[in-house]
Amino acid sequence: MTKKAVIGVTGLATMGRNLARNLARHGHAVAVHNRTPARTKALVTEYGHEGVFLPAETPEEFVRSLERPRRIVIMVKAGAATDAVIQEFAPLLEPGDMIVDGGNAHFEDTRRRERELRERGIHFVGTGISGGEEGALNGPSIMPGGSPESYEALGPLLESIAAKVEGVPCCTHVGPDGAGHFVKMVHNGIEYADMQLIAEAYDLLRHGLGMPPAEIAEVFRSWNNGRLESYLIEITAEVLAHTDPATGRPFVDVVVDQAEQKGTGRWTVQTALDLGVPVSGIAEAVFARSLSGSPRLREAARRLPGPSRFKLEQRFADDVEQALYASKIVAYAQGFNQIQAASDEYGWGIDLGAMATIWRGGCIIRARFLDRIRAAYAADPRTPTLLTDDHFAGALGDAQDSWRTVVSISAQLGIPTPGFATALAYYDALRAERLPAALTQAQRDFFGAHTYRRVDREGSFHTRWELPDRPEVGA
Amino acid sequence: MTKKAVIGVTGLATMGRNLARNLARHGHAVAVHNRTPARTKALVTEYGHEGVFLPAETPEEFVRSLERPRRIVIMVKAGAATDAVIQEFAPLLEPGDMIVDGGNAHFEDTRRRERELRERGIHFVGTGISGGEEGALNGPSIMPGGSPESYEALGPLLESIAAKVEGVPCCTHVGPDGAGHFVKMVHNGIEYADMQLIAEAYDLLRHGLGMPPAEIAEVFRSWNNGRLESYLIEITAEVLAHTDPATGRPFVDVVVDQAEQKGTGRWTVQTALDLGVPVSGIAEAVFARSLSGSPRLREAARRLPGPSRFKLEQRFADDVEQALYASKIVAYAQGFNQIQAASDEYGWGIDLGAMATIWRGGCIIRARFLDRIRAAYAADPRTPTLLTDDHFAGALGDAQDSWRTVVSISAQLGIPTPGFATALAYYDALRAERLPAALTQAQRDFFGAHTYRRVDREGSFHTRWELPDRPEVGA
Repeated sequence: MTKKAVIGVTGLATMGRNLARNLARHGHAVAVHNRTPARTKALVTEYGHEGVFLPAETPEEFVRSLERPRRIVIMVKAGAATDAVIQEFAPLLEPGDMIVDGGNAHFEDTRRRERELRERGIHFVGTGISGGEEGALNGPSIMPGGSPESYEALGPLLESIAAKVEGVPCCTHVGPDGAGHFVKMVHNGIEYADMQLIAEAYDLLRHGLGMPPAEIAEVFRSWNNGRLESYLIEITAEVLAHTDPATGRPFVDVVVDQAEQKGTGRWTVQTALDLGVPVSGIAEAVFARSLSGSPRLREAARRLPGPSRFKLEQRFADDVEQALYASKIVAYAQGFNQIQAASDEYGWGIDLGAMATIWRGGCIIRARFLDRIRAAYAADPRTPTLLTDDHFAGALGDAQDSWRTVVSISAQLGIPTPGFATALAYYDALRAERLPAALTQAQRDFFGAHTYRRVDREGSFHTRWELPDRPEVGA
Repeated sequence: MTKKAVIGVTGLATMGRNLARNLARHGHAVAVHNRTPARTKALVTEYGHEGVFLPAETPEEFVRSLERPRRIVIMVKAGAATDAVIQEFAPLLEPGDMIVDGGNAHFEDTRRRERELRERGIHFVGTGISGGEEGALNGPSIMPGGSPESYEALGPLLESIAAKVEGVPCCTHVGPDGAGHFVKMVHNGIEYADMQLIAEAYDLLRHGLGMPPAEIAEVFRSWNNGRLESYLIEITAEVLAHTDPATGRPFVDVVVDQAEQKGTGRWTVQTALDLGVPVSGIAEAVFARSLSGSPRLREAARRLPGPSRFKLEQRFADDVEQALYASKIVAYAQGFNQIQAASDEYGWGIDLGAMATIWRGGCIIRARFLDRIRAAYAADPRTPTLLTDDHFAGALGDAQDSWRTVVSISAQLGIPTPGFATALAYYDALRAERLPAALTQAQRDFFGAHTYRRVDREGSFHTRWELPDRPEVGA
């Protein structure tokens, strides 16, 4: 009897190939398959020495080479390609088998696919995998959804190849059906916000303080030794310290200042809007990228008048660090609230602290900071917002003077800081005893008879604005 | 031979009833129908003297009572109800007949319905109608989509009942299929932004300057005599001047400060994200409403530390007026860019100046200001942004010192002004010679090999960040 594989990977582009190698390196026999067999051959030729690969030319051969229950990881482009691969493999599978979708699928698609396959007895496990190519190979953060039974069969395998932080694998069962892909989506949304805040901090140091990139790299390096320690801060220092070999100029200056995006940031905001969760930090980050990529608009607007500049003192950099940390707390608090809202909406029962735990390693937003979030949810799993956790509330209190200074000075200098500004506005709006939303609701009653509630009595009311004495009526 | 009606209205809730009355009052014989005939009877009993109503108990009777080609206006709840009514009436119609959907349908639904009915030879005319109940009765702003042929048959009727400004009807053919509902959606999105900016202005006068509502009403009244003249500013003054009869307190203080929403603001932002258009002003307005309606979140966060307050001088109110005007320009510029993007995407050929023209009367955002937008598009129909129009650029230049002061002082006072702040950040980002998006894109290349473009050479490039000398390769 030939040896069978414990797991199979189909779709051997960079991500799939690296995931297969990661599995093989951890002693798992891996069946490998690709629509065009050349890729399969190349993988075995180049990396065959790393472990046991069972190459298959056809779906049938691939499925036959797997021990039961079968575990198939599909690593193809999200969308139609995923459905095509499912259609191809599902008829070959038996009840109890598992299909793991490791792509960046929209969680609604994952919910649909899980439902359809469940009817055929097949477990569909939508799984977020973060960490890019390097993470896939050396240890990603893994966010599997799907049934608890499927996690029993898959968990040990996935945990073995995940990143480890203090011995804890960056992988846990997120929740049923689309929960894994949802959490991965919000992870990416938070990543957008994080990057936008870093970009604003850089911009202020560059154009507010007039520091050259190499010097700013040093600032980020020093920040990376403190509470901001994270992969993104670390690579920011690397990027800013890099000199373009061709021109000898700072590398960041030769890059076209148009940031691209693939869609998960956009999805995060669109979904948050449906859930009614204000994720303004992520939204501003997505809009900032769209704006940067609108050359015609920017070209037209470049001559608009700006303020006169003034000189800042060097200690402004410390204020920027405070603003960055405070705004980061807000962006994460908003993202975690979105996960909480979806978990409630779809009955996923997601453990928010566990999400922070599995993001500590492997993924792009890995940071020391996430330990604080883990601790905050350990202290109060149902806290309405991370902002009120003792540690974060203290940090925000300490930061607020600097934070206000940075937003205020940015406005005066004409340096756009939509991320810092919206984070501060969110903080102040949440703090507010009364919001002008009362006026908004009264206006809605005025022009659309949308009614209002009163602070002193239960019920819905409408004012007959068209009558001279404006009587109030119950509604 | 019995007299036939030139147009019919089915769905006689307030909006439908008022639209039918408006038609009858303008001398058009109107067939009226409602699922429950009691409403039809009540309409004829109460308002029969206003014109010629032809009541019908059944769809068949309703259709028979219309002259050909038939014009049927459906005024039912957007969504499944609309599809149900279409399914009910379409089989009774003949090629060349028209169904006008006057509800707030999502434009993608309208595109689908138009396509399906077109195959049966029936014109489906998704039509935005703005102005609420009062507008429906006395003259709304009307935004019909659908085929040009349908507008030939419908235009004169609709124009006769639309609001008029300087003799010009607030109704025009917007463009094919879903164009009318799309433009109505963005109209509502702009309305959200407008209301949020007004709310922020009120909040600053109230809690920054410490003015009582009645005094703020006077400020808004004076603003309404200037460039801010608009329905929304006018009703803001009315609302703020109103005293609650039950308590004798300012009315705005007895209203619960949670602003509700129905969905078109959310749709506007979701669609803008798909189109890649930064509508940050509308997004902040939608988020501000969601935040206001999150009592648990606000309750938890209320004890977070705020800044110490300081005293402002009375002339700060003038700065607020400048900030309001400048931010309003930005919000409208963003909304018009979204319409332009959709028009390009779907081939609608929308005349942006005409949209400003038909919004001058009848609708909620009616304002003198819209004449300026009309003029801006008359001067340059393809301008990339309204901000660079001579008038608006001048106004922004004049306003910017005050605008910066207001955003700056709001941050220092701890009064949330997400709308003012995001508008200023948008203005400054568009003005920027270089954006920190270059850093963002470099980071994306670092962690995801997403490549970048260079400022000095064509092509896509990738830096091999993992190698010690970090060579650049073409991609």
